[in-house]
Amino acid sequence: MATYQRIVLANRPRGPVTPENFRLETVEVPELADGQLLVRNHYLSLDPYMRGRMSAAKSYAAPQALDETMIGGTVGEVVASRNPKYAVGDFVAGMFGWSEMGVSDGALLRKLDTTRIPPSAYLGPVGMPGMTAWYGLNQILQAKAGETVVVSAASGAVGGVLGQLAKLRGCRAVGIAGGREKCDYVVDELGFDACVDYKAGKLDEDLAAATPVGVDAIFENVGGAVFDAALARTNAFARVALCGLIAGYGGEELPIKNARLLLLNRITLRGFIVTEHPELWPQGLGELAGLVAGGKIKYRETIADGLAAAPEAFMGLLKGKNFGKQLVRLI
Amino acid sequence: MATYQRIVLANRPRGPVTPENFRLETVEVPELADGQLLVRNHYLSLDPYMRGRMSAAKSYAAPQALDETMIGGTVGEVVASRNPKYAVGDFVAGMFGWSEMGVSDGALLRKLDTTRIPPSAYLGPVGMPGMTAWYGLNQILQAKAGETVVVSAASGAVGGVLGQLAKLRGCRAVGIAGGREKCDYVVDELGFDACVDYKAGKLDEDLAAATPVGVDAIFENVGGAVFDAALARTNAFARVALCGLIAGYGGEELPIKNARLLLLNRITLRGFIVTEHPELWPQGLGELAGLVAGGKIKYRETIADGLAAAPEAFMGLLKGKNFGKQLVRLI
Repeated sequence: MATYQRIVLANRPRGPVTPENFRLETVEVPELADGQLLVRNHYLSLDPYMRGRMSAAKSYAAPQALDETMIGGTVGEVVASRNPKYAVGDFVAGMFGWSEMGVSDGALLRKLDTTRIPPSAYLGPVGMPGMTAWYGLNQILQAKAGETVVVSAASGAVGGVLGQLAKLRGCRAVGIAGGREKCDYVVDELGFDACVDYKAGKLDEDLAAATPVGVDAIFENVGGAVFDAALARTNAFARVALCGLIAGYGGEELPIKNARLLLLNRITLRGFIVTEHPELWPQGLGELAGLVAGGKIKYRETIADGLAAAPEAFMGLLKGKNFGKQLVRLI
Repeated sequence: MATYQRIVLANRPRGPVTPENFRLETVEVPELADGQLLVRNHYLSLDPYMRGRMSAAKSYAAPQALDETMIGGTVGEVVASRNPKYAVGDFVAGMFGWSEMGVSDGALLRKLDTTRIPPSAYLGPVGMPGMTAWYGLNQILQAKAGETVVVSAASGAVGGVLGQLAKLRGCRAVGIAGGREKCDYVVDELGFDACVDYKAGKLDEDLAAATPVGVDAIFENVGGAVFDAALARTNAFARVALCGLIAGYGGEELPIKNARLLLLNRITLRGFIVTEHPELWPQGLGELAGLVAGGKIKYRETIADGLAAAPEAFMGLLKGKNFGKQLVRLI
């Protein structure tokens, strides 16, 4: 009998995620029923939102169930099909989770064009991270040419796209990232106007220097001191897209100390979850695909090899050890 | 030579406002130039925003100048006029400040109909406080019938109107106020569905009981622990109108501890200053005038007598000692 491997949530983290929260299992490849297809996943996406799902605390989505395959986006190749819409060899994006294979009736899959865009990009700039940036910039920040846009976790899968989209609009794009190497990449490779290293110990001062005429829009991935530093630079009528609070995934308190500025600068802040706006995905992914295929949006990947490497790669992601989009290669 | 009295800002407060921050002066009534009119003020409005103006710190408006008449809204009667648009005996609303009289060219005055509505109401429900509530509810909260709206400082000039407007829309209106007497008034007189006494020592618990199906909209006047308690009860896609942060007028830090909920509940928060939206005042004030004249909106006033009583009344306002709209009677 053919088998494949998957990783399930063994128990919920108390504080930081540990390897013991996960369990690698070997399971049998099931027989396909009529209408089903079997996918061999080539890449698994690791994303900060998974940390939230591992907790039982109230959130916007139900918690990840114990002893079930960890949630996650995947791209892979159809290796068997009893569904007339999918042929063996088709590439598809899906949510098969931390698993080498997956069975589907095809309903929630997206067929991919891999002639212009490599498969892994559909988990990055032409997938959920790219859509997150596209939605935040277009629907919430609505940044205009000449405005200054600040994005935290700027070298990450979301932040990198956000800044490049802002540049294409004629904005000044200022990133915040951890470490000199990431900041250099954000400026030299992605084309941001500036990037502030929050690990350098003078975040407020450096951000002020990088935003000489203040900040009109903030795309916030991190929270805590990083967010407060950006708020401190806001101009009147600034907008904030609140996308993530990765600084608090370990359970730390994340107060907004500069709350007063929300009033003084008449700021509009919106928290959002991009998967709640599926009606905009076709438009957004279409635009992103064109920009990636045309070389207008660049991206970087950190790739861990083999499913067993996923937990460690995920823990690294939560600590900012990855550089660009964190993936796990499964073939 | 005829004289009148005014109060100027003598120096800026360090921490709480004290009587020494103000100085009462006697000045001469000037000769009217052509086109000018002279107003004897009947009422001075005291409002929390004045505290912000007394500081030199960056804010949305320039600081109150030292040795100049304290800013403030007034209603009064024209007692001399060389302006063809105003006759002696006309009632007008203006911004003559903490002063018994004022001279104007008429440009920024609003002529009042005092046959249906008493003059003082134009400083309350049919003035800036009423417009603040109207704007917040209609333009930001957009509360629908059946939704739960929470408003802090609920017995105040803004909060009281907000809750009554929400009730007229078919919402559940829940107030937060300080003390049993204020809470009883909010429920018994203004018709809110419930009011939580934040001084009773179990704000979170009491607010949870008063909002059994959560909170869809928050009109925030206070900040700090009161705001965090309301945030803790939010439903998905809640809206927040950030109108004031009276808890922090003494310079206290006012962190938003429940920042995480802004993301988890996909909240939209907007800080606003109602005077920046003059295009909506005619519509808003027209609606409010009709509701007040028709008895659909009730209000309460705390009236201090004589200009010299203004500083103490203002300090009381910042501590919540007033009950409803704080006014100073000048005649």
